[in-house]
Amino acid sequence: MKHTISVLVENRPGVLARITGLFSRRGFNIDSLSVSVTEDRTASRITITADGQDSTVEQIEKQLNKLIDVIKVKRLEPETLVARELMLIKLSAPPQKRGEIDELARLVGAEVAELTRDTMTLSLTDTSERIDRLVELARPYGIRELVRTGTVALERGAKL
Amino acid sequence: MKHTISVLVENRPGVLARITGLFSRRGFNIDSLSVSVTEDRTASRITITADGQDSTVEQIEKQLNKLIDVIKVKRLEPETLVARELMLIKLSAPPQKRGEIDELARLVGAEVAELTRDTMTLSLTDTSERIDRLVELARPYGIRELVRTGTVALERGAKL
Repeated sequence: MKHTISVLVENRPGVLARITGLFSRRGFNIDSLSVSVTEDRTASRITITADGQDSTVEQIEKQLNKLIDVIKVKRLEPETLVARELMLIKLSAPPQKRGEIDELARLVGAEVAELTRDTMTLSLTDTSERIDRLVELARPYGIRELVRTGTVALERGAKL
Repeated sequence: MKHTISVLVENRPGVLARITGLFSRRGFNIDSLSVSVTEDRTASRITITADGQDSTVEQIEKQLNKLIDVIKVKRLEPETLVARELMLIKLSAPPQKRGEIDELARLVGAEVAELTRDTMTLSLTDTSERIDRLVELARPYGIRELVRTGTVALERGAKL
């Protein structure tokens, strides 16, 4: 089962290594992780998506709560979260293909972030499922490279 | 100095823990990190932003190259990269404030991702500097919570 875990931490060296080490020691593969500062620069928020059994996630949640510099841990339920991911994808785009790729971008709600003589880089922010779909739609043009942030999410109404 | 490092890795358990451990042992604080799969599901791309001396980053780059499961390491130069970050920000928004917040969203190019009786959640994809600015512009409304992905980046023209 897919899980989304949000961890608020003190912004100190080593905290990320301790958290990723905890997952690794449990043999729990992280699908995606992102961490950055919050509105309060002394705190960072880490969002982790991982696939695994409920019981293992519960154990990890408990252990995360015991770690130094961890302020709050929360599992986000799919029904109650607002989730988005960002992807930058660079495609082969000789001039005669630009129109077609531009149309694809418009249809999926992506933005043309960069244009060179033979490439176009699109930026798309959407759900992970829709980002997966753009990857498939873009494949025939030739994907030069892509980078995804992994999912970030907030609970719909309440404060985390 | 601010550095952006892009690391392509085999998608195996433990690789993220080894990489964050390397930074931590060097006392190098990571400002942001994001990792997710690429177009090839056996590989993940990690983007790290960190502040530190050139010489330390060079050493870390060398050591990253020696790690198991690391395919490629590249420092991205600010002049040659396309960089974006995504933020979800939830604001206090009683009905009489909705119009004002909606206008702010439109002016900065953010999207209204979610609306509840007393909150609005905006989604913004832009450079980190412009995201910082939205945080400041949004502060007077009352930030309930926010989450940022950290910067992801690709080189403009060439293949990484």
